Amino acid sequence: MKQEDNVIYIGKKPLSNYLTAVTLQLAVKDKKQVEINARGKYISKAVDVAEVIRNRFIQEAKISKVEIGSEEIPNLKNNNGENVRVSTIKIVLSK
Amino acid sequence: MKQEDNVIYIGKKPLSNYLTAVTLQLAVKDKKQVEINARGKYISKAVDVAEVIRNRFIQEAKISKVEIGSEEIPNLKNNNGENVRVSTIKIVLSK
Repeated sequence: MKQEDNVIYIGKKPLSNYLTAVTLQLAVKDKKQVEINARGKYISKAVDVAEVIRNRFIQEAKISKVEIGSEEIPNLKNNNGENVRVSTIKIVLSK
Repeated sequence: MKQEDNVIYIGKKPLSNYLTAVTLQLAVKDKKQVEINARGKYISKAVDVAEVIRNRFIQEAKISKVEIGSEEIPNLKNNNGENVRVSTIKIVLSK
């Protein structure tokens, strides 16, 4: 299954990598919206990406949706088949 | 200026402290809504608080608003009067 270009997952890479990825979609490829997703400790970084894009990079970009939720993922620390809950965020930037 | 009881600021205390504070407002004092605020790296913890309350503690609670934004705060590392940008989140839980 091909991942959509304009859906970005935030992880351990430097903030600038994600700023570049979002800018590529909105400003270079001229997509109308980008979806920024993150889980757990990367949620704060996802908000940073959206805010820096909106405030400094692409003035016309606005936040059209913010959703928070939970996902069950396998517990990697304790491989007993139990799942752990992790928080998620989805931020949609539009222009 | 008196801080409103039902406005909670997330910081470095353990998650359980904030879960107790939110539960006190919604379940014990029977407030109709609680506002959960955080900045910077505490944004992820604010989402955890809202999600654990909604999924485990207070079934009737729902997320009625999620707002992200930026604030300028004094740069404490480099005391030259310049401000730094920090991301913020406001989550409103209602029942």
